[in-house]
Amino acid sequence: MEIADWRNKIDELDEQIVKLISERAAAAVAIGKLKQESDAPIYEPNRERVVFAHVRDINPGPLSGVQVQDIYERIMDVMRTLQRPVETK
Amino acid sequence: MEIADWRNKIDELDEQIVKLISERAAAAVAIGKLKQESDAPIYEPNRERVVFAHVRDINPGPLSGVQVQDIYERIMDVMRTLQRPVETK
Repeated sequence: MEIADWRNKIDELDEQIVKLISERAAAAVAIGKLKQESDAPIYEPNRERVVFAHVRDINPGPLSGVQVQDIYERIMDVMRTLQRPVETK
Repeated sequence: MEIADWRNKIDELDEQIVKLISERAAAAVAIGKLKQESDAPIYEPNRERVVFAHVRDINPGPLSGVQVQDIYERIMDVMRTLQRPVETK
């Protein structure tokens, strides 16, 4: 396969990744609403640790566990922003 | 759905996301090898711009385009590291 072929494959993967990240974001919004209703804190370091451990655990490579967690730290940062009420965004 | 149900859904989504990001990483490794063979540069800002435009374009929400790009900037940073020869990692 040439570079152009691999890039076509990457573009297709990105379409699936963006779709799944968006579904994850919709779930985070739903959780944010439930948290607001119950006055629960938005930032829950224990849950974030569970997520990081999970993604490192299921990582098949070639990324290292640190690299997968690095990507997920950004994902979690963005998801947290999404849970904050509009006026504090 | 309760918070615990949404979290189960998120864990399932993460399993698919990590799988796809790993496939993307494997494709980046393959491209890195082709680049090394042809002495092409690892950092290609034009290609990165195309990727960012693509993911913003296909983004269905609820994330903003900026937020999706924010996640992808981290993904691209990590993928670039993966393309560098081992001795400069």
